[in-house]
Amino acid sequence: MDQEELRALLDGLSQGEHTVDDVLQRLKALPFESLDGFAHLDHHRALRTGFPEVIFAQNKSPDHVAEIFQRLQQRSKQVLATRVTPEMYALIQPRLPEATYHPTARALYLDREPDRKKRPGVLVVSAGTADLPAAEEAALTASLMGHQVECIYDVGVSGLHRLLAHLPALQKARVIVVAAGMEGALPSVVAGLVSCPVIALPTSVGYGASFGGLAALLAMLNSCAAGVAVVNIDNGFGAGCLAARINALAGEHEHA
Amino acid sequence: MDQEELRALLDGLSQGEHTVDDVLQRLKALPFESLDGFAHLDHHRALRTGFPEVIFAQNKSPDHVAEIFQRLQQRSKQVLATRVTPEMYALIQPRLPEATYHPTARALYLDREPDRKKRPGVLVVSAGTADLPAAEEAALTASLMGHQVECIYDVGVSGLHRLLAHLPALQKARVIVVAAGMEGALPSVVAGLVSCPVIALPTSVGYGASFGGLAALLAMLNSCAAGVAVVNIDNGFGAGCLAARINALAGEHEHA
Amino acid sequence: MDQEELRALLDGLSQGEHTVDDVLQRLKALPFESLDGFAHLDHHRALRTGFPEVIFAQNKSPDHVAEIFQRLQQRSKQVLATRVTPEMYALIQPRLPEATYHPTARALYLDREPDRKKRPGVLVVSAGTADLPAAEEAALTASLMGHQVECIYDVGVSGLHRLLAHLPALQKARVIVVAAGMEGALPSVVAGLVSCPVIALPTSVGYGASFGGLAALLAMLNSCAAGVAVVNIDNGFGAGCLAARINALAGEHEHA
Amino acid sequence: MDQEELRALLDGLSQGEHTVDDVLQRLKALPFESLDGFAHLDHHRALRTGFPEVIFAQNKSPDHVAEIFQRLQQRSKQVLATRVTPEMYALIQPRLPEATYHPTARALYLDREPDRKKRPGVLVVSAGTADLPAAEEAALTASLMGHQVECIYDVGVSGLHRLLAHLPALQKARVIVVAAGMEGALPSVVAGLVSCPVIALPTSVGYGASFGGLAALLAMLNSCAAGVAVVNIDNGFGAGCLAARINALAGEHEHA
Amino acid sequence: MDQEELRALLDGLSQGEHTVDDVLQRLKALPFESLDGFAHLDHHRALRTGFPEVIFAQNKSPDHVAEIFQRLQQRSKQVLATRVTPEMYALIQPRLPEATYHPTARALYLDREPDRKKRPGVLVVSAGTADLPAAEEAALTASLMGHQVECIYDVGVSGLHRLLAHLPALQKARVIVVAAGMEGALPSVVAGLVSCPVIALPTSVGYGASFGGLAALLAMLNSCAAGVAVVNIDNGFGAGCLAARINALAGEHEHA
Amino acid sequence: MDQEELRALLDGLSQGEHTVDDVLQRLKALPFESLDGFAHLDHHRALRTGFPEVIFAQNKSPDHVAEIFQRLQQRSKQVLATRVTPEMYALIQPRLPEATYHPTARALYLDREPDRKKRPGVLVVSAGTADLPAAEEAALTASLMGHQVECIYDVGVSGLHRLLAHLPALQKARVIVVAAGMEGALPSVVAGLVSCPVIALPTSVGYGASFGGLAALLAMLNSCAAGVAVVNIDNGFGAGCLAARINALAGEHEHA
Amino acid sequence: MDQEELRALLDGLSQGEHTVDDVLQRLKALPFESLDGFAHLDHHRALRTGFPEVIFAQNKSPDHVAEIFQRLQQRSKQVLATRVTPEMYALIQPRLPEATYHPTARALYLDREPDRKKRPGVLVVSAGTADLPAAEEAALTASLMGHQVECIYDVGVSGLHRLLAHLPALQKARVIVVAAGMEGALPSVVAGLVSCPVIALPTSVGYGASFGGLAALLAMLNSCAAGVAVVNIDNGFGAGCLAARINALAGEHEHA
Amino acid sequence: MDQEELRALLDGLSQGEHTVDDVLQRLKALPFESLDGFAHLDHHRALRTGFPEVIFAQNKSPDHVAEIFQRLQQRSKQVLATRVTPEMYALIQPRLPEATYHPTARALYLDREPDRKKRPGVLVVSAGTADLPAAEEAALTASLMGHQVECIYDVGVSGLHRLLAHLPALQKARVIVVAAGMEGALPSVVAGLVSCPVIALPTSVGYGASFGGLAALLAMLNSCAAGVAVVNIDNGFGAGCLAARINALAGEHEHA
Repeated sequence: MDQEELRALLDGLSQGEHTVDDVLQRLKALPFESLDGFAHLDHHRALRTGFPEVIFAQNKSPDHVAEIFQRLQQRSKQVLATRVTPEMYALIQPRLPEATYHPTARALYLDREPDRKKRPGVLVVSAGTADLPAAEEAALTASLMGHQVECIYDVGVSGLHRLLAHLPALQKARVIVVAAGMEGALPSVVAGLVSCPVIALPTSVGYGASFGGLAALLAMLNSCAAGVAVVNIDNGFGAGCLAARINALAGEHEHA
Repeated sequence: MDQEELRALLDGLSQGEHTVDDVLQRLKALPFESLDGFAHLDHHRALRTGFPEVIFAQNKSPDHVAEIFQRLQQRSKQVLATRVTPEMYALIQPRLPEATYHPTARALYLDREPDRKKRPGVLVVSAGTADLPAAEEAALTASLMGHQVECIYDVGVSGLHRLLAHLPALQKARVIVVAAGMEGALPSVVAGLVSCPVIALPTSVGYGASFGGLAALLAMLNSCAAGVAVVNIDNGFGAGCLAARINALAGEHEHA
Repeated sequence: MDQEELRALLDGLSQGEHTVDDVLQRLKALPFESLDGFAHLDHHRALRTGFPEVIFAQNKSPDHVAEIFQRLQQRSKQVLATRVTPEMYALIQPRLPEATYHPTARALYLDREPDRKKRPGVLVVSAGTADLPAAEEAALTASLMGHQVECIYDVGVSGLHRLLAHLPALQKARVIVVAAGMEGALPSVVAGLVSCPVIALPTSVGYGASFGGLAALLAMLNSCAAGVAVVNIDNGFGAGCLAARINALAGEHEHA
Repeated sequence: MDQEELRALLDGLSQGEHTVDDVLQRLKALPFESLDGFAHLDHHRALRTGFPEVIFAQNKSPDHVAEIFQRLQQRSKQVLATRVTPEMYALIQPRLPEATYHPTARALYLDREPDRKKRPGVLVVSAGTADLPAAEEAALTASLMGHQVECIYDVGVSGLHRLLAHLPALQKARVIVVAAGMEGALPSVVAGLVSCPVIALPTSVGYGASFGGLAALLAMLNSCAAGVAVVNIDNGFGAGCLAARINALAGEHEHA
Repeated sequence: MDQEELRALLDGLSQGEHTVDDVLQRLKALPFESLDGFAHLDHHRALRTGFPEVIFAQNKSPDHVAEIFQRLQQRSKQVLATRVTPEMYALIQPRLPEATYHPTARALYLDREPDRKKRPGVLVVSAGTADLPAAEEAALTASLMGHQVECIYDVGVSGLHRLLAHLPALQKARVIVVAAGMEGALPSVVAGLVSCPVIALPTSVGYGASFGGLAALLAMLNSCAAGVAVVNIDNGFGAGCLAARINALAGEHEHA
Repeated sequence: MDQEELRALLDGLSQGEHTVDDVLQRLKALPFESLDGFAHLDHHRALRTGFPEVIFAQNKSPDHVAEIFQRLQQRSKQVLATRVTPEMYALIQPRLPEATYHPTARALYLDREPDRKKRPGVLVVSAGTADLPAAEEAALTASLMGHQVECIYDVGVSGLHRLLAHLPALQKARVIVVAAGMEGALPSVVAGLVSCPVIALPTSVGYGASFGGLAALLAMLNSCAAGVAVVNIDNGFGAGCLAARINALAGEHEHA
Repeated sequence: MDQEELRALLDGLSQGEHTVDDVLQRLKALPFESLDGFAHLDHHRALRTGFPEVIFAQNKSPDHVAEIFQRLQQRSKQVLATRVTPEMYALIQPRLPEATYHPTARALYLDREPDRKKRPGVLVVSAGTADLPAAEEAALTASLMGHQVECIYDVGVSGLHRLLAHLPALQKARVIVVAAGMEGALPSVVAGLVSCPVIALPTSVGYGASFGGLAALLAMLNSCAAGVAVVNIDNGFGAGCLAARINALAGEHEHA
Repeated sequence: MDQEELRALLDGLSQGEHTVDDVLQRLKALPFESLDGFAHLDHHRALRTGFPEVIFAQNKSPDHVAEIFQRLQQRSKQVLATRVTPEMYALIQPRLPEATYHPTARALYLDREPDRKKRPGVLVVSAGTADLPAAEEAALTASLMGHQVECIYDVGVSGLHRLLAHLPALQKARVIVVAAGMEGALPSVVAGLVSCPVIALPTSVGYGASFGGLAALLAMLNSCAAGVAVVNIDNGFGAGCLAARINALAGEHEHA
């Protein structure tokens, strides 16, 4: 039952064609999806984040990815597909001539408003250059969601001076994503230097007892620094999205 | 070397008592702790959060906890000690007559400004009543840090109507802490209903294959809902602190 | 907004006091909890299972358990609290004089209809006598839910003749709960002998590399026999409840 | 020793050719397989499920799979081989011209009675489109076993309205298979909405701390909703077979 | 149906009281337990090992243990209960005046033939004195089963000279049980020095990353020395029983 | 220092060329490898097992494997290389024209005494056909070591009648290797039917929560049947070697 | 055979009482322990470390610990027992009046040369005060072994300025033990600031996903800083002993 | 702000151009990176180890590796890239004509001072030939860092005589790296024979329950021999680097 049907029902009541009891009975049985409220909620989310759905391309066929991407770009100004391998991109590129491929972030995206003003405040930090795929995925995600992102890479804890050289940038940020593999210590160190929320993004960089990023993940969950938010291993998209949600909050009252 | 010594050194240079090279040599060897900048940083953090140190009482002797608490209450308006068992509280209560014990949160605290205006925006949700210790620890922490906290308890996913009844409160919040044990599904459901950041707080509630909260933790890390921040199992303090950091951000621009 | 308010709203429309657009607007904003359908759903569930809520006593205070039990016994004919230790029972027994304590199943229950006719079909099998707590919890749960339960205990796979002696009972059952710890092999063997659904209930019986029942759990999940349903370690309640759901299905068409 | 030999032996006794002691001695030494009871049991199972053996093609050579399939199709009306890759299918297709390949379910099957009347009651639900291989394997299995299967896909918990739109279908089903990867929360939500048995089918969809489906598996085992049956990760066949066993039970008394 | 009933049935056939078809029908329905072969099998095992059942006292009530022990001692010359704590022994000692308690092995046993000739060949070796509970449980088990056991203790791999001093005893044994906790390296070293079967018995001795004996268990399973048999952590009974099975084999042909 | 040097030293002492103190000093510094006892020990092992070293080909280059094989075949009548892939065999076949490749066991071997009399007693049992690689590796290993091996395959616990049909063969064996993947239940069942040692050989057959054979391994370690020896996952060589060590023991006294 | 017997044997040869062949034969059969070389080796180790054996008191009875301690103090100037609980100390204190108890390190020790000159160079650093038991055990161990130990406590990575204030002391050390629980990040940071070997000592401080110190252990094993040595969780003794071995090396050439 | 700026600032103060307060203010804001001490520290480390950065080639593109290598060889006499596959080497060889590839260690390196005098003392021992990649990586690393390395390979614990034959070399070393996979027992045995520090290097050699080297890692962490330092699985570079740090210590005082 969509809004038209509902209106028709109420019209019928208003015009004496239905009794109140009849209408009451029909309303009780309303399937949930037909409630405008719900649809509105979903629509509202879409409006705020700028894209109603992000395509997780892993485990999807190239055809499937291309098809969803095409559908989304008909109604959204920004479209994002994550975990797109170069091989997949080569296959679907002809069907998506407007889309841009970001090889490090392994992401395919479309931004029809590249020049819109973005909200400053998001900083992405990485421990090593091998953490770049996750870090760049986070940066791209937050950027597409309307946030201005700065990046500081290769400032791992075994050479503190590299990190401390960027103290001013760290302390200026409103939310910081810190990507690190191996022992995953960087978020703890960063969170001790700043007062804003820190998003710890463990990566699968490492070998042996890193167990595919488990060591970094556990380290981040056990951070002795308060105020650290953790996401899944290699989940750059989630980290970027969380950063956007937080930074959007900061902006909420900015122009009030 | 504190600020006075540094000033004396520079005075000596200014008055011709030291050469530039002497002073340069001394400055190079400056121990880091003597840098005002660093001390200032730490001080700054204290000012913002309201209490420079939180006492993690687990593994500490009652004497030790009482002593640190007494020291902190001499210079802070709010003091918080977490993981204080009733047995420990019974022992140290006589030495801390001003402190209040929160038995569910297992926390001991002192708030000398109970009537100050707090910043609204933090919501704490729990799946079951067994999750209350962690949830209440989060709520108390955020509250002591100056945030107004609302709580909705016992709205687990196996009875969705209980949760959906609180949809308006969920959608009004600026940041939501969601505590859940067992399968840990509630944060995913909540995050799908709102657009603000959601902090997933896994608890050790459960048995068997819950493995002390591991099942809930993994579920939260793998949430299909974007924008979920995860903290350690039973880390109510961390969740509350993170909520405070995020909600403070929202307030940053509020009065600009 | 409850049903009365909704009726008033529709009355207003019917009587020309509200316009269709006004009513439409109000309906869109309907909070979910006010929908009769939802409340009905929950009520419906209670009617079918016979008790709207089961008390998981672990991690609850004796006072809390006694209080919930008292509340439930005012409106239900059957009440069940699981994971009640003898110590807890000793404390709350005076307040619950009608309740019965089942020491092996560690359960406290009340059944106001002990003589009602129960639906036959549920069989509970255990590998060893140490598995009895879980097995008896399953049996009691299914029984309270209105099912007639037969039990065969101590028929582990290292002495096949003990199990095979009960082949007729196994093949007569409509659903079988099989409790086993250690290597957890019994459900596979039983499922190979029957065609009805088999519920594998791993127990924490064992030591060393049983890892608290993990070995049995994994074995059951990897059963080479098709049609095996697995529940959590020591989750006798869940197994009994699932058996009741399945056996109720069998009965659904029985009297049609 | 088959039934004929046994009859000959008893005839001999009846006609005085053997003594009672001789026959007693022979019977004691009876190998178990020669017991009609046992053979009957096996035969009985075959009759009920419609196919005496399902081919698990993984780790088998294409030749081996083709050969078993050919043997089975000589005596069964339905034949099923699971985990058949497209590469394997390409190799064996010429030898199995009658068989149909289901690429999503990765299954090869033969159904000589496509038009037989199937028993309604089985519903298969999936959280995401990436869960389709497991979900479709479950649906195909139950269908080949004689059950009418409905499917609802892509109704994950991060968008509750999608699931709630199908509430009537959920509440009408007799048994529901719920496939989900990542945090595996959907079965708990579904089981809270219905009163029939729910079969939780964890999938390996996810990355990082999903640990190949472990996160979803643990979540399902720890479901706070009672009456949830769990099967192995990606075990669509097992879920479908269990659904068939349960739904068959419902039908047992249907036509009585 | 026991042998007498079967004989009566055949007598009836022989005497024309039953038809062949009747008897055939009855035989098909024979419950398995009534087969002499099976009962004999079990009996045969009892005869060989000397005690039909060993009591695993952990998780059993003292009453239950005492009762089973009393029952067993009425028909067996040797009785063994393992995992009997001193507290349990204190409670049941008055009811079992003939039994002997072995505090290190935490075992309660009765041997009515202490002077029988035992079969030589079993050697029990331990890495440290902390491994004695498991080692002594193994030794006592094998001894009660009729084997002569020698013991060499505290010969861990960090002081090879201690082990090598016993080379002649090692090379004379027919089967060796090697108990070790921590890194569990001793079985590999011993198995490299001898040609007989080596039973590796991991113990839970250790802390931290020993994970309750897991480290030792994994080490033993990965032994680079061929011919190592592994049992569960702290499973001294299993090791002793396996040693007895193997050494019995050696003796099988000894007196032929 | 070899034996000749030692003799020369003692000759010198005997003939007054060295003093006792000199010789004493030299003996204290004796490197261990020069002790005849040690060398003899190693030689002795070689004589008994028939091949001084088995080549574990995994992680070795084809060249390396071929070279060691050639060296070993110059001094041994039996040579065995395990974990040889078909690809590796294709590369080294030309250099090893006498060797035989066993594709199921993935083993390359040479037996210059194919007709020698072997010692009966070893039985290899497998749960499914997918367990054949491990089972055949065990059988080939024991056979090359001089034991006569019988095999019973595809007798998993979900169809007990298949196993029970072979009861006589099981009860005749002196040592049984039982290979099983998935839930790994077969060794427990077999060990309950026989009195000889049972070697449990877990295989990596399975998927999902089998975790590469971990489920089967844990099940076997936790067997409720006493007298079960466990080896590493897929360690057919180890199981065969252990069976040979045990069966050799049986034979030790055979011809005495 | 000790040195005297060996001398007697050689004397016999020298005096013509034995032949060379006789002596050769006797020497071949020499049990290993009787070789002076071996005893000397062990003796040599004792001389260097100062105490031939350290008592690991956990899992030992108080009597046993007291007895070994008494025996060791008769021949050693330093004696150390680790993991001595206060309860155990209370029981054995009367028998060991000379021994000193260190409650934080849970160690009992005796040092008869408290004033000997110790070798400088060992530094022990801890992240938090809760890590003191492990840190102090390390410090006491190294000290008793003759090394001068400095300590810097409570300098965790979430407040870098605390650590950096001690940079000169860090850079002066020859070997540094770094104790840390929770995320275990401190060793990586320290190792990046110095060029000497760093011994990472993970502690079990933490909760939830620290899994008893596993998180810290994994972090340390995955350190991105080169030159980090890791020991077991809470193994303060091992860390102290390793520090002593390394620092002794530094001293080896000091006075040459 | 570099040293020149700092000097200019102090010059200004000295010459009355700035006030003390101005300078004080500027110094407080000093970014950390401009401190000479810090830069010097890093430089100091480079001087001591001989190469300021080691390239971890895994997860880097060949172009990236070649480029960094070229940059490093312009300012360092030794350059090392680890985890370089033969395929990667083939691609970058033309651009790095001076570099040498070590196929077993999978390392690419450049040493412009091949004839410099190296410090003796490092010994690398391996259990099997399959451990060579890790062992050789350790040896090459320590060698490039200026240490003379001896190697003893294939001396696993299942054939002790092979190890004991090298006792003199073991006891002469100043630091020993012991590489072992499978059960990882060799470091414990070696550490019991020597008094110098032993670095345990677990390798991923093995299968099944070795879990990619976890078994060896755990064994080494639980070594009963004191003074064992553990590094990550397959971390030959870390082991070599740690050996160099330790051996450098020995040399520190050598020429004093």
